[in-house]
Amino acid sequence: MTIAEKIRTIAADARQAAIAMAKLSTGAKNDLLVAMAMALINNTPHLIEENRKDLEAGEQKGLSAAMLDRLMLNEARIRAMADGLREVAALPDPVGEVTKMWKRPNDLMVGKMRIPLGVIGIIYEARPNVTADAAALCLKAGNGVILRGGSEALHSNIAIARILTGEMKKAGIPEAALSVIPFPEREGVLEMLKQEESIDLIIPRGGESLIRFVVEHSKIPVIKHYKGVCHIFVDAAADFDMAERIVVNAKVQRPGVCNSLETLLVHKDIAETFVPRIAATLAGLQVELRGDDCFRQFAPAAKAATEEDWAAEYLELILAARVVDGLDEAVAHINRYGSLHTEAIITDDYRNAQRFIREVNSSTVLVNASTRFADGNQLGLGAEIGISTTKLHSFGPMGLEDLTTTKFIVYGNGQVRQ
Amino acid sequence: MTIAEKIRTIAADARQAAIAMAKLSTGAKNDLLVAMAMALINNTPHLIEENRKDLEAGEQKGLSAAMLDRLMLNEARIRAMADGLREVAALPDPVGEVTKMWKRPNDLMVGKMRIPLGVIGIIYEARPNVTADAAALCLKAGNGVILRGGSEALHSNIAIARILTGEMKKAGIPEAALSVIPFPEREGVLEMLKQEESIDLIIPRGGESLIRFVVEHSKIPVIKHYKGVCHIFVDAAADFDMAERIVVNAKVQRPGVCNSLETLLVHKDIAETFVPRIAATLAGLQVELRGDDCFRQFAPAAKAATEEDWAAEYLELILAARVVDGLDEAVAHINRYGSLHTEAIITDDYRNAQRFIREVNSSTVLVNASTRFADGNQLGLGAEIGISTTKLHSFGPMGLEDLTTTKFIVYGNGQVRQ
Repeated sequence: MTIAEKIRTIAADARQAAIAMAKLSTGAKNDLLVAMAMALINNTPHLIEENRKDLEAGEQKGLSAAMLDRLMLNEARIRAMADGLREVAALPDPVGEVTKMWKRPNDLMVGKMRIPLGVIGIIYEARPNVTADAAALCLKAGNGVILRGGSEALHSNIAIARILTGEMKKAGIPEAALSVIPFPEREGVLEMLKQEESIDLIIPRGGESLIRFVVEHSKIPVIKHYKGVCHIFVDAAADFDMAERIVVNAKVQRPGVCNSLETLLVHKDIAETFVPRIAATLAGLQVELRGDDCFRQFAPAAKAATEEDWAAEYLELILAARVVDGLDEAVAHINRYGSLHTEAIITDDYRNAQRFIREVNSSTVLVNASTRFADGNQLGLGAEIGISTTKLHSFGPMGLEDLTTTKFIVYGNGQVRQ
Repeated sequence: MTIAEKIRTIAADARQAAIAMAKLSTGAKNDLLVAMAMALINNTPHLIEENRKDLEAGEQKGLSAAMLDRLMLNEARIRAMADGLREVAALPDPVGEVTKMWKRPNDLMVGKMRIPLGVIGIIYEARPNVTADAAALCLKAGNGVILRGGSEALHSNIAIARILTGEMKKAGIPEAALSVIPFPEREGVLEMLKQEESIDLIIPRGGESLIRFVVEHSKIPVIKHYKGVCHIFVDAAADFDMAERIVVNAKVQRPGVCNSLETLLVHKDIAETFVPRIAATLAGLQVELRGDDCFRQFAPAAKAATEEDWAAEYLELILAARVVDGLDEAVAHINRYGSLHTEAIITDDYRNAQRFIREVNSSTVLVNASTRFADGNQLGLGAEIGISTTKLHSFGPMGLEDLTTTKFIVYGNGQVRQ
């Protein structure tokens, strides 16, 4: 079989296996995940051995130390993967939940029931732990899953998947519900993206270039986010201590992630007092500031911001900053330059808090809290399969429920249509 | 400007106007829809005049009498369009609804709030009333809308849209939130389908070839259904009177629509008694039966069904029929040949009713009721913008809520991430 034929077989088999997955009881799914966790632990030496092949090939290919670190599996990381599986087992099962039910004038009872999406394709980069995490979430939601990790992690990913499907086999669950694409060639991804008859959804996880490649070539719907240009608006009625604490947390605690702060907007009425204070604090934390003219008037050490700075996702200790006339200008700035990811207002003004919540239509909108909370775990989804900044199906951090859809269910007693 | 440039301008302007639409109060949206209804009535002579141009061109082009009838506007139909707008005005506004809210251990209050999708493109065929209906639903849900109707209805559609946007102008609402593509050329549709930066969702309404064309060429997500191959399974424990009444209603009441019955499955234990009865009744109603061998044993007048019959959407008085071993075989048949549209079981057996509801993952699944209820109005959505048989975002009949998405809203009191 050619690679393309093999991919088509994997996808078609997953479609069939997903029918069985959808019928599994919650108990059976949870038992499977717990058994998978145990099997990963029990196979630690084998996993480390297979991972070593990837590491050696990576060293020869000249991967950076950071890349090699992300690729590396050790005992602690394998234990963390197993813990992740157990955590997913402990989450409530979304499948079968009736989200609402109502009665029609003709006594029909009409409801919406959650069902699995079907088959989900995950395309990701170096870290092999995604293989176990993503598989667990997709299977718990009753789906089939096809995983295509980075070619540099191929031995590790195949080894993890073999251990997981071994447990499926023992439990009498069709192994085709979980597959790793075993080819490092790009042809494999391209063929996978054409299987719209067998795969319902593609979730790419990784850098912007990977995601753009997937979107460009997919015939299957893709849920994705390219970047997070997150804003905080410090309103005139802000508590300065709180504002400083939140801005620092959002920018500095982990600058390399998508929910970190990239642009600070300050109300003009407090610019004279707040800007010098926050500028000094951030300077002390090695944050480079790039401000508009008004901001720089009160923070002379800041560089001048250019048009590009307003749209920049720095992912490092750089912050764009601008003084705005008020809420309207802040919202207009966010609408113009934002990425629909995450925005926060710091204010003690009730009306402005409510207006910001209502008028800013980014996927996560916060009042008096750090943008760093825009994360499935932090928001209480239990686990996160990804973040969407496109509005269809899911918007914002996605958990188990986002791997389901709803069907209409109708209980009648003989009704016909007039 | 070329057609392509003009389309790009319409789409970009709609994107901007949608920001204003999203902020409109429920009252302002309802007032607008009521004013639009009144304006349609008041402009009845003008609408009939413009419609006459389409009818005359249609006659010259040799459109069928049925097509010309669908195209035709008269006083009663214009009044019905106006009533449709008033009905949408009376529906609850989905925008701003907080569908759930929960408290995190750190006291963050996290909720999900419904917001408009953004800009929706509707691509449809002859009937000009869709112009008003679809516009009303999209606008009520706070969206911008771009309408591309059939070229044969162009004068009518432009006239309707001008009347509607006239009311938007009077109310100070950006008219760009509602556009009709004023070009009959196919180039216009193709360019529209490329505006993924400005349009969030495409909903095609019409025949399968229109829908396949849209799916083939769209860079924007498409929600659609190709066909409805709907099944009824008459279980061993069925009440025969009820089964007959429902089968007749589902097949005969309006055979040309997507939720009408196409395949009947009968439990083998009742084949000897039920099949002759239903066959006689359907024959009396001019329904042609195409059965498997077992069905024909008890209904000798039925033709022999071929493999194609199991997948056929007849949309006329023809019914495929098969005797099955029981629920498992019925579900397997539906999984293999169904279109994920609508299926019903007729049974008095509690367990089988519950199993059918749980195991059949079509977009509408009924117990003891006609498949003809798979319709937004009948299920209580208030109005229907379309039906989806793809699982992403919406599955089944779609109402106002399906023209929205949800964002996360977070109320904090200074929380930062540890």
